[in-house]
Amino acid sequence: MFLEKINSPADLKKLEIDELKALAEEMRAYLLAVLSQHPGHFAPNFGTIELAVALHKVFDTPRDKVIWDIGHQAYPHKLLTGRRESFPTLRQSGGISGFLSRAESEYDVFGAGHSSTSIAAALGIATARDLTNENYKVVAVIGDGGLTGGMAFEALNAAGDFKNDMVVILNDNNMSISATVGAFSKHFHKLTSSPHYNFLRSGVKELLNLIPADATQVARKIEASLKPGTLFEEFGFRYFGPLDGNDLEALIPVLTGIRGLSGPILLHVVTEKGRGYTPAEEDPVGFYSVSGPFNLETGKTIKPKSTTPAYTEVFSRTLIELAKRDARIVGVTAAMPGGTGLDKFADAFPSRCFDIGLAEQCAVTFAGGLAAQGMRPVAAIYSTFLQRSYDQVLHDVCIQNLPVIFALDRAGLVGADGPTHHGVFDMAYLRSIPNMVVMAPKDENELRAMVKTALVYEDGPIAFRYPRGTGIGVKIAAEPKALPIGKSEIVREGEDVLVLAIGNRVYPALEAAQTLADSGISATVVNARFVKPLDTATILPLAERIGKVITIEDGVVMGGFGSAVLEALAAAGIKDVQVKNLGIPDDFVEHGDIQSLYALCQCDADAIVRTAKAWNS
Amino acid sequence: MFLEKINSPADLKKLEIDELKALAEEMRAYLLAVLSQHPGHFAPNFGTIELAVALHKVFDTPRDKVIWDIGHQAYPHKLLTGRRESFPTLRQSGGISGFLSRAESEYDVFGAGHSSTSIAAALGIATARDLTNENYKVVAVIGDGGLTGGMAFEALNAAGDFKNDMVVILNDNNMSISATVGAFSKHFHKLTSSPHYNFLRSGVKELLNLIPADATQVARKIEASLKPGTLFEEFGFRYFGPLDGNDLEALIPVLTGIRGLSGPILLHVVTEKGRGYTPAEEDPVGFYSVSGPFNLETGKTIKPKSTTPAYTEVFSRTLIELAKRDARIVGVTAAMPGGTGLDKFADAFPSRCFDIGLAEQCAVTFAGGLAAQGMRPVAAIYSTFLQRSYDQVLHDVCIQNLPVIFALDRAGLVGADGPTHHGVFDMAYLRSIPNMVVMAPKDENELRAMVKTALVYEDGPIAFRYPRGTGIGVKIAAEPKALPIGKSEIVREGEDVLVLAIGNRVYPALEAAQTLADSGISATVVNARFVKPLDTATILPLAERIGKVITIEDGVVMGGFGSAVLEALAAAGIKDVQVKNLGIPDDFVEHGDIQSLYALCQCDADAIVRTAKAWNS
Repeated sequence: MFLEKINSPADLKKLEIDELKALAEEMRAYLLAVLSQHPGHFAPNFGTIELAVALHKVFDTPRDKVIWDIGHQAYPHKLLTGRRESFPTLRQSGGISGFLSRAESEYDVFGAGHSSTSIAAALGIATARDLTNENYKVVAVIGDGGLTGGMAFEALNAAGDFKNDMVVILNDNNMSISATVGAFSKHFHKLTSSPHYNFLRSGVKELLNLIPADATQVARKIEASLKPGTLFEEFGFRYFGPLDGNDLEALIPVLTGIRGLSGPILLHVVTEKGRGYTPAEEDPVGFYSVSGPFNLETGKTIKPKSTTPAYTEVFSRTLIELAKRDARIVGVTAAMPGGTGLDKFADAFPSRCFDIGLAEQCAVTFAGGLAAQGMRPVAAIYSTFLQRSYDQVLHDVCIQNLPVIFALDRAGLVGADGPTHHGVFDMAYLRSIPNMVVMAPKDENELRAMVKTALVYEDGPIAFRYPRGTGIGVKIAAEPKALPIGKSEIVREGEDVLVLAIGNRVYPALEAAQTLADSGISATVVNARFVKPLDTATILPLAERIGKVITIEDGVVMGGFGSAVLEALAAAGIKDVQVKNLGIPDDFVEHGDIQSLYALCQCDADAIVRTAKAWNS
Repeated sequence: MFLEKINSPADLKKLEIDELKALAEEMRAYLLAVLSQHPGHFAPNFGTIELAVALHKVFDTPRDKVIWDIGHQAYPHKLLTGRRESFPTLRQSGGISGFLSRAESEYDVFGAGHSSTSIAAALGIATARDLTNENYKVVAVIGDGGLTGGMAFEALNAAGDFKNDMVVILNDNNMSISATVGAFSKHFHKLTSSPHYNFLRSGVKELLNLIPADATQVARKIEASLKPGTLFEEFGFRYFGPLDGNDLEALIPVLTGIRGLSGPILLHVVTEKGRGYTPAEEDPVGFYSVSGPFNLETGKTIKPKSTTPAYTEVFSRTLIELAKRDARIVGVTAAMPGGTGLDKFADAFPSRCFDIGLAEQCAVTFAGGLAAQGMRPVAAIYSTFLQRSYDQVLHDVCIQNLPVIFALDRAGLVGADGPTHHGVFDMAYLRSIPNMVVMAPKDENELRAMVKTALVYEDGPIAFRYPRGTGIGVKIAAEPKALPIGKSEIVREGEDVLVLAIGNRVYPALEAAQTLADSGISATVVNARFVKPLDTATILPLAERIGKVITIEDGVVMGGFGSAVLEALAAAGIKDVQVKNLGIPDDFVEHGDIQSLYALCQCDADAIVRTAKAWNS
């Protein structure tokens, strides 16, 4: 048993190759034991075990800086860097993060929950090193999916220009989250499998001797053209590979060699996702992440699936229904067909669904282009990932008032994925952009109505944002009915306090109203539905009459829905109203159980009750 | 004279090649005549005259869709599409836009003031065409600078995958705004100038006959390797070029040929910036844009330079002074060394200034990497362009609380550049991100103090945002003094109304207070300095005492500074205070004279006076 003795990479350095191989197998078994009980990212981590072992064997971490892209490929790295024992606390309240975290470990050089950032961060770190005349090594590890994100290219371009010593390891498992899309990826894989590849490569090397000696640049280019790394050579990187990234005997000497080289180096390793666990090898997309205990032999989830449909499912189903009646409706996803439910839309309408790669910027502007020609594009993007396309939403869609529909899944707190993934900024940043309509449903049936609302609205961009996970369990209307734009719904009436709630905070508000009623405090509860345009016609007279207003939202208080209510009151010249804004406070929220996190944020029924009682005592 | 007869591209189609050449020269003369009198983008438009003529000659616009990237290369296109007569109104209030605008012309297929969007938009348009079985052509025209923006690569990757018919024209003038940076650009230019290039290219073509017939893919790759377009072939595009983009006799037949091809096509044209006007040919960077009347013979600006320094200049000078004392201070720009004043910083500290290309995402995360290693990076980015890196600010910098300094030039309304360039969203979107400090100076001397404040603050990210143009003309302190974080300044005292002003709205607030004093209304004016953290210790007691509060800011009201004041009042339980929020209303603001635009937005001294008088009448 080696794993139990590895408390830091120093313990790894003493091991010989056979021992390292045994260690890798122990890590695989340990990952499987833990992840078959606890939810987490799965398949990518089974591919990076040998890579993590080899990197920590060859490089002098944490003095040398290894920057993992996204971080959900970095569980093996966590096991080797002092987090073996705490690993079963993964993604739980108070436990270790499912991503990299500078706060968690000095070995986590640069945190990342979103993709494609590692090369830019590594370039910054390498530049700092060279400015201060230090001499450590800098290594970025990026997946082939991460490479489809534009900022990875921006950074390759800058790194090839700056020429600092740095190594980029392309972890090529031909799968980002679903299968990697994009022409480059396809070309790449086709070429390396060509039967003439090796024959030609050696033949051309001989041919190069016939060429005038000073034509070296062109000659290098021809030779490079026979490797799959031409693209990287164009960016000024020296390319090595492809190499079997699950073979320690190949990895260790190559990394050792590369460690001694200077300038920008790209090492291309091919790893197998899910490696060592047959069900995951056979279904790497299904095993991209696991959501709870599963049977080790069959790979089947043990927990019975909830009979309450997930928000994602209701969105997907409604979209498909409506798309049957309107050929202009098309789907756009940024490498998340499964997560957004567009996979089923693509099954139903293969020619009407577009996966643009891990490239939210392009996805939004692409949708703008579709809308400009009269299509009804639905860009289904997680709330947190839409942050990547803030400018495209503003500059390409809203300035031109193009009727793009934004379906923002995973809005509000997302739980185990933590601060990089909470979708809590969307209401604040979207409502400050002119022309945008922003909705949030109280439950899955209202989501269904909002899908319809968005699709019949053709006057400009419109967004609806909805939570992760299962709905409330309400009845789903047979026929979705469009809501009037900018109209809220009074869901309970009372005289002592006015609760203005939006999205998944409406039911907690109703729960609070019930509790308050037991204490003799009667509350009006409004389901705002629209962050923008705000239903001032309903809200303002109520606020003026009742005089005590609690706003509650599953988003940041600063600039959010509650702030919109304050602005409306001020604009109408209504004073003498006491307002308490509940929501996500001005701090990043850690990972943990969703309901506990809302309680921690004082953004739940209890917080409403406390506020109302304090006012009415 | 041909130009005066061109009212639409239809008039162009009748002309023969010699007539088209004459037309191009007339356009050159007309551009020069107008732009030597009116400010605007200059050199890029002198390079694209023949391209615009050829595109409208060969393609059937507006049925065929030509999408110009950025749009400030599109003046010749404007001249040919019904805007010849209105061209002298360029960028003036009520005149034509300096960029493309769907509202302005059906020939402006997709608006753009920010770069690198055209390929994504074109792909959306081409996809819509194919879904609806229409058969027009789609052409994107992008500069080599625009290609360094990540979303251009995202779109190339998707377009090569989707394989719709579309043409991307790479307008290669080896200059985006300053010289194009990035490894790819350098490689590109080195290769095409190789003496062995043509010799080898034909030689290898013969060699390919010796290769087994089924090795076509590899063979194509070798052949492609001898063209500068390898990168595009990797993305699945057929590459043609390079071609002299100022030669109509070359352009017209090639475009005609390409018009008949299918699939993704990349045509590489080389154009000369400033072509036909010697001072601009010799100094294309200086002539990237022109700011007012200049002498046609010498190219020298006629208007004497203001003796009041520009904000940019004060920032640049202060940064250089402070950097002399702290070797950790480094500059980061996204292809805007001149515009941000980092060019002078680079002159003073060549090894400490980094131009990352038109790639704001990479710039911010790169700065994060530098900060993670203890450097003091100053990312100098226009307010409007920071929108491109919203997620990098949030995810890479703020979550990790890295002490990156953001110097946001061109904040507030920018005037002639219009809606794509107004820097009015920054206060709203930055203040809702935890850990961020956000400042705005009332004048150039306070900017100097804020540069110092930001550089001595090491607890996390900090931003200061300042206007375009010259300062107020105040005395500049010999030694900049750091401000206490989160502390405002009371600049005038009075009892009837409280004006809370930030940034360039402080002087208008003082002017309003003076006007009000003449009517017997006394005002307290606070220079807030910090949007975040807000100086509640000063503001709240004043608001409570005076009871009438006007907030004014050079940013959007929705979610902005005034909204922060409302939140603070509510959080403190202070009611019975009347608040009026002045700022940019919830609409995109057109181009025009800055002061007129502020008046139009009711965001000036008059608006304060009107509000206060209404309250006190």
